[in-house]
Amino acid sequence: MASIVTIVDNLFQNTTGNSTISVPKLYDFGENDGSFIMICAFLLVTLQTGFALLESGCVSEKNEVDMMLRNVVDIVLGGVSFWLFGFAFMLGRSLYRNPFIGLGDFLTDASVNDPLMGQLMAVYLFQMTFSASATTIVGGAIAERCNFKAYCLFSFLNTIVYCIPAGWVWGEHGFLSNLGVVDIAGSGPVHLIGGSSAFASAMMLGPRLGRYAKGTDPLPLGNPVNACMGLFVLWWGWLAFNSGSTYGVSGAKWIYAARAAVMTMMGSFGGGTFSIIYSMVRNEGRLDIVDLINGILASLVSVTAGCFLYHAWEAIIIGVIGSALCCFSMPLFDRMGVDDPVGASAVHGVAGIWGVLAVGLFADNPIPLDTTSGRSGLFKGGGWYLLGVQSLSALCLICWGICVTLALLWIINKIVPIRMDPNEELLGADLMEHRIRHSQIGISRALSALAPLKIDLDDAINAPPIGRNPGHEQCIDEVRAASQKLYEWRSFMDKMSPQKKANDQPKVTDNPGLSKGSFKLRNINRKNKNGTDNHGYEGKYSHGTSGAENGLRAGGNHLFTVTKSGENSHGERHDQNFAWID
Amino acid sequence: MASIVTIVDNLFQNTTGNSTISVPKLYDFGENDGSFIMICAFLLVTLQTGFALLESGCVSEKNEVDMMLRNVVDIVLGGVSFWLFGFAFMLGRSLYRNPFIGLGDFLTDASVNDPLMGQLMAVYLFQMTFSASATTIVGGAIAERCNFKAYCLFSFLNTIVYCIPAGWVWGEHGFLSNLGVVDIAGSGPVHLIGGSSAFASAMMLGPRLGRYAKGTDPLPLGNPVNACMGLFVLWWGWLAFNSGSTYGVSGAKWIYAARAAVMTMMGSFGGGTFSIIYSMVRNEGRLDIVDLINGILASLVSVTAGCFLYHAWEAIIIGVIGSALCCFSMPLFDRMGVDDPVGASAVHGVAGIWGVLAVGLFADNPIPLDTTSGRSGLFKGGGWYLLGVQSLSALCLICWGICVTLALLWIINKIVPIRMDPNEELLGADLMEHRIRHSQIGISRALSALAPLKIDLDDAINAPPIGRNPGHEQCIDEVRAASQKLYEWRSFMDKMSPQKKANDQPKVTDNPGLSKGSFKLRNINRKNKNGTDNHGYEGKYSHGTSGAENGLRAGGNHLFTVTKSGENSHGERHDQNFAWID
Amino acid sequence: MASIVTIVDNLFQNTTGNSTISVPKLYDFGENDGSFIMICAFLLVTLQTGFALLESGCVSEKNEVDMMLRNVVDIVLGGVSFWLFGFAFMLGRSLYRNPFIGLGDFLTDASVNDPLMGQLMAVYLFQMTFSASATTIVGGAIAERCNFKAYCLFSFLNTIVYCIPAGWVWGEHGFLSNLGVVDIAGSGPVHLIGGSSAFASAMMLGPRLGRYAKGTDPLPLGNPVNACMGLFVLWWGWLAFNSGSTYGVSGAKWIYAARAAVMTMMGSFGGGTFSIIYSMVRNEGRLDIVDLINGILASLVSVTAGCFLYHAWEAIIIGVIGSALCCFSMPLFDRMGVDDPVGASAVHGVAGIWGVLAVGLFADNPIPLDTTSGRSGLFKGGGWYLLGVQSLSALCLICWGICVTLALLWIINKIVPIRMDPNEELLGADLMEHRIRHSQIGISRALSALAPLKIDLDDAINAPPIGRNPGHEQCIDEVRAASQKLYEWRSFMDKMSPQKKANDQPKVTDNPGLSKGSFKLRNINRKNKNGTDNHGYEGKYSHGTSGAENGLRAGGNHLFTVTKSGENSHGERHDQNFAWID
Repeated sequence: MASIVTIVDNLFQNTTGNSTISVPKLYDFGENDGSFIMICAFLLVTLQTGFALLESGCVSEKNEVDMMLRNVVDIVLGGVSFWLFGFAFMLGRSLYRNPFIGLGDFLTDASVNDPLMGQLMAVYLFQMTFSASATTIVGGAIAERCNFKAYCLFSFLNTIVYCIPAGWVWGEHGFLSNLGVVDIAGSGPVHLIGGSSAFASAMMLGPRLGRYAKGTDPLPLGNPVNACMGLFVLWWGWLAFNSGSTYGVSGAKWIYAARAAVMTMMGSFGGGTFSIIYSMVRNEGRLDIVDLINGILASLVSVTAGCFLYHAWEAIIIGVIGSALCCFSMPLFDRMGVDDPVGASAVHGVAGIWGVLAVGLFADNPIPLDTTSGRSGLFKGGGWYLLGVQSLSALCLICWGICVTLALLWIINKIVPIRMDPNEELLGADLMEHRIRHSQIGISRALSALAPLKIDLDDAINAPPIGRNPGHEQCIDEVRAASQKLYEWRSFMDKMSPQKKANDQPKVTDNPGLSKGSFKLRNINRKNKNGTDNHGYEGKYSHGTSGAENGLRAGGNHLFTVTKSGENSHGERHDQNFAWID
Repeated sequence: MASIVTIVDNLFQNTTGNSTISVPKLYDFGENDGSFIMICAFLLVTLQTGFALLESGCVSEKNEVDMMLRNVVDIVLGGVSFWLFGFAFMLGRSLYRNPFIGLGDFLTDASVNDPLMGQLMAVYLFQMTFSASATTIVGGAIAERCNFKAYCLFSFLNTIVYCIPAGWVWGEHGFLSNLGVVDIAGSGPVHLIGGSSAFASAMMLGPRLGRYAKGTDPLPLGNPVNACMGLFVLWWGWLAFNSGSTYGVSGAKWIYAARAAVMTMMGSFGGGTFSIIYSMVRNEGRLDIVDLINGILASLVSVTAGCFLYHAWEAIIIGVIGSALCCFSMPLFDRMGVDDPVGASAVHGVAGIWGVLAVGLFADNPIPLDTTSGRSGLFKGGGWYLLGVQSLSALCLICWGICVTLALLWIINKIVPIRMDPNEELLGADLMEHRIRHSQIGISRALSALAPLKIDLDDAINAPPIGRNPGHEQCIDEVRAASQKLYEWRSFMDKMSPQKKANDQPKVTDNPGLSKGSFKLRNINRKNKNGTDNHGYEGKYSHGTSGAENGLRAGGNHLFTVTKSGENSHGERHDQNFAWID
Repeated sequence: MASIVTIVDNLFQNTTGNSTISVPKLYDFGENDGSFIMICAFLLVTLQTGFALLESGCVSEKNEVDMMLRNVVDIVLGGVSFWLFGFAFMLGRSLYRNPFIGLGDFLTDASVNDPLMGQLMAVYLFQMTFSASATTIVGGAIAERCNFKAYCLFSFLNTIVYCIPAGWVWGEHGFLSNLGVVDIAGSGPVHLIGGSSAFASAMMLGPRLGRYAKGTDPLPLGNPVNACMGLFVLWWGWLAFNSGSTYGVSGAKWIYAARAAVMTMMGSFGGGTFSIIYSMVRNEGRLDIVDLINGILASLVSVTAGCFLYHAWEAIIIGVIGSALCCFSMPLFDRMGVDDPVGASAVHGVAGIWGVLAVGLFADNPIPLDTTSGRSGLFKGGGWYLLGVQSLSALCLICWGICVTLALLWIINKIVPIRMDPNEELLGADLMEHRIRHSQIGISRALSALAPLKIDLDDAINAPPIGRNPGHEQCIDEVRAASQKLYEWRSFMDKMSPQKKANDQPKVTDNPGLSKGSFKLRNINRKNKNGTDNHGYEGKYSHGTSGAENGLRAGGNHLFTVTKSGENSHGERHDQNFAWID
């Protein structure tokens, strides 16, 4: 019984006072390092913004808000599970951890007396952003057809898919780590895992309705400007991603952090140049936006694993190859019938494999840092060992990513169907899941086509379109109605008085004495009980034939009040008021 | 007289050489701290970007640019007043300061010889961003109906509303500070003050026209994607906000900065999870975007006051409660008839109260920092004192926020009416204040409805719609006219020559010899006087019946020139030119 | 021969071991400085994001994606050329450098043993972002009419325009640097060079088609919200720009970095206030968005050169003057027929001149830093020398910027015409260069107008509009067709059976026994060979008259299959499936 208490104690407590566990190497840093890691983590939160914008810009407009919200959910629910068990499985420091899984630090926290509180908090914050990235990569691949509730569950549970293999590579306990695998900022654990999951889940969900009805050409983007902006945000987030993965700036770390940043940029220059040329050649001189964005992202993925181990020209070459692999595999996946709306499988999966392997080929030994445990890549005379370990790592991560994702989605599918209803898919998740109705993209046509199918769409049909103000539209209607009545009255009076000719248009006279009817909109400034001014607006349309009031008031809110009375009422006017017509 | 000189001297000079004033605790930091504060301040400027995007995305489309511009004005005019007197009232270091108000450092500056220049500049920069935030919070609450000019005045003067109570809490002179109030990053001074002001001003301005005509349901958002993006930007800005409020990283500060960042995220995870569940339960499975965004922001507000004084699970609970308070109070305020388009009163006001009180309940004593003057919260065995002080602080800030805002708006209303004209409100501030005309959102319909009301709308009616190029449209018209003439000529010739059949479509022949008429668009490369190439384009449409020139030239700019002449002119062609039709 | 090897060696190698070259002053910094420079560089990458958003928001909608992509290209191709020769020309450290041009460090890199690797990498990264900025400034001025391929070439080569004069000002070898020019963050090398290039290239390209057809008023913006957002992003990028230009925080550097940040903000407050007042006075109370954005940017440009050499009130004055110069010169350039869609010539060119000169007037001598070599500005009693050098610098930079840009564009024009075809210009680069088709902005009208002109527009006409999903639209069509058939069958049956009345609307009965025809949409869950679920959807519409199958299948993708058969097929249904109609 006592031992169970001890086990629980070890799993949930931090290890302060537990003299059997020394300071892990990961936590061996100080003030300057900590502040650098923190600032990089702040910038890393932007990475999620970049993914959100990119994914939301790539899907059709009827799903763009939904994609943003899924990225919010990724952070929130993924953050909760990372706290509950993700960090524990990844870097848990209890005695029960083993080469396959970390254990300890569940419900991650630190007491005020913990000498490692700062280190723990900084590393936890930094890793949390990595975990969210791995989930959002999958979110892109299953966009536009994955049920929102199922996605919420997935978002919560996907932490398992990421955290366990991340522990293999980065934890002191991990078997890949102990074999000497080198992956500085996560081409493997973040991108390859994310990309494999993306591929598996895109395959399992099946293509979007009608996706390949007109061939395998990519569908048009919903918001290409936002997609580009996503690329920009990811670009600078990536600098923090790769530089921050030195876990500090003390000693020689800052030198390699700077090298990481430069080589990240160089890789993207290589990949970007390839994408531009490839796209122009393939498309008769036109630059395709998806090729460019995904080519650049793929090159960033490729240099991530060994970002500060490369020379500039090597980073460029690695970027070019990563970009090429991505550009070639995107259409290939489409021909395989795997519908990945944002190309996540190609960008993160295929380029992720290359990124992991490239370390085995090109890595320098960064002497002061021992990142590579003294080894070098094949082309640097380091022999085949590193390449072998990297290959093994890629293999393990792919298998894990695909198998666990399939199992996870299979289980989730038992609870909530992972695929949207076809009608929901056709109408878009914005409308069906969030009651956000876009205009000008064929929603009304789809609603009318689906109406005979007995689906309850009342809620969707009644959703007001975004961008407009229904309250204002009601006001406009009232103004129009009042104008119309005024016009009719004029016409009637004109017929009665033969000396006046009928006017073609409603005319409002300036002279109150002459006006047979008048339309009035008054700004009335009333004192509320609490002493504040409540500016109500009251419109009065008056003529002599009827006293019926045709007004509208809702709650404490003053709308146009259209009244009819025999005389023209020149009521009180506030000094800052105005009358539209008098 | 000399004493007046001394007073002025003390108020405007920095206190260098004035041996009666020692280095304030706030300024007791060095190089590493300074650079951390600065970088956090850079990120904090993003906070304004986040507010701008969120507010602009929440209002209807006809006000979205106006909301962005108001946020620009907040920074600019709020920045000027913060420089003139804001910082002086908040943290002024002269002898004349008192527990109610700081005095000194007006027109904040530092001489090159001031030993505290770096500290002053860093703190000033950091606080400036806080001040802008407090104003923009109010800007959201009075969106879509507050007159732009009045808002500019308000933006300038609102600094008073923020800076004086911020001094109470954060200044060495402040009475709340001396009572031992704890507010790390401003749940009170920034958010509660902002939220109270927002509530008071939304109440005073009254609801938007027709707001409650169809019940109290929220109006549709204008641009939900931008609103989500605003949330993301605020999220990462908030990390800098809360972490940076340790004012440095030296000693144990970086540890608590890291804890602040983690607990900020944990709070938002709690709040976000609550919002997701609450929204789905309330809306039959649909996630409402406003509930989600505001729930997360409210949880961030809630953990702000004690961000590095909490454990993870406490931060989550505080976030959940903050989010719940916000989600419940938003519809309540609507039922009260207080129309707050972005929910600022609930997010910053209600959650701000809870944030201030939560410190009194949950706060740890962060031993090395003495943030809490050695006290702890009620649940940590610290007794009722801290909770009492926090309650007093909340009370003082609410009263100040509401009363001073009402007074300020009352005064501004005497100068410029704070409420828009109804016609301006119906047509939107983008069009009426900035001559930006959106398409597809009913502006034309509103213009025609309001046209009979004798308002001078010519300017609005003539505004070209955004997104289109009126110059190009004129070119297109000319091309169409020319094509039409060509077609007519062909038809005429076809009738005349009976051996040729009438064509259904205008056909342009390739053989110049056969062409009866020809349309030509030539790229003519002329040398300007200054030696640079000016590429003009000239289109010639020629046939045999008329020599009249129907051209258009504007200034030095070459438009399509449509000429008619009897012969087909094969003029000079630049080698890199082209002819559309020959 | 050996000497050639040595030359090549010197040019491409870093100078490690070359004892004749000492540590350059620029590289004389350490860990804390390096990490500050890096973080500022990360933020600086956002500057490109800001430019992209601003430029994309300012052009008409049919070019907005193209502008984003041009900014991507700026980074990529500009980055490649900066690596190849840009950094070499700017700060190359070989023996062959001379007062006019740096040489050395071509293909910039550093070996692992280079003691200056960190410094080189940090400075290289920081300067790379400056170089990209100088190009994108020009990109704005030639927007909407510069051929995309020519722009790619320009983007690659423009590095020369920037890097050589940047070396004059910032390199140890530069003749202006040795004369004592002071330009902290590049009012001259970045902005004045960029602005001069912008002016020259806008003049050379000529105005957009029809630009001045309706006078010189600015054209409406395509996306004003994005333009505002660009301003915000530039604002915070600018803080990093100016602060980071202290190249560190050690010693007194952080104090001046903080001062730089504050004075940057103060300058923008001054410029912003001027813009607001100027715009409101000029436009009868309306705030013009372009005046505001460009006024603020111009004030930022103005304070950039001497950002940490000014007092607060001086920064405000400098900002006001910069903003005024920009606001006055924008309409002037339009009257001169120089069409600069984003106002880059005024913002960066005119304000850049003022920024360079302002140092000669207002600069303090920042004693611990020797930025000014001990000199002060004219108004600080430093005499005329500094002002003279600054004027010379401005003159040299303008001449260089204009002449080299003209030469460069002239050469590029020989390879690829720099001006778009008129039809491409009228249809927009989004459609013609990237096959992105916007809706609702008159593209269809333009296409039909240009159709008779024998241009091959098939590709453009067939481009699917963004925001919509063509696959879904096909599904909707099928559902509609099926519904229609069902309705017809019902009508027919109703006529046949006289006891039943014709229904006005298609009605679907619930009783399978009674249903004469049925429309069915089934979710069929099939196992793929690889064991994963592939959710296909199959719709069956059945009635008794015909057995012809009217289905559609594309590849492995299951679309609606509409069949006709005599009996109602109640097939297998998956437990999580549904039938829309039974």
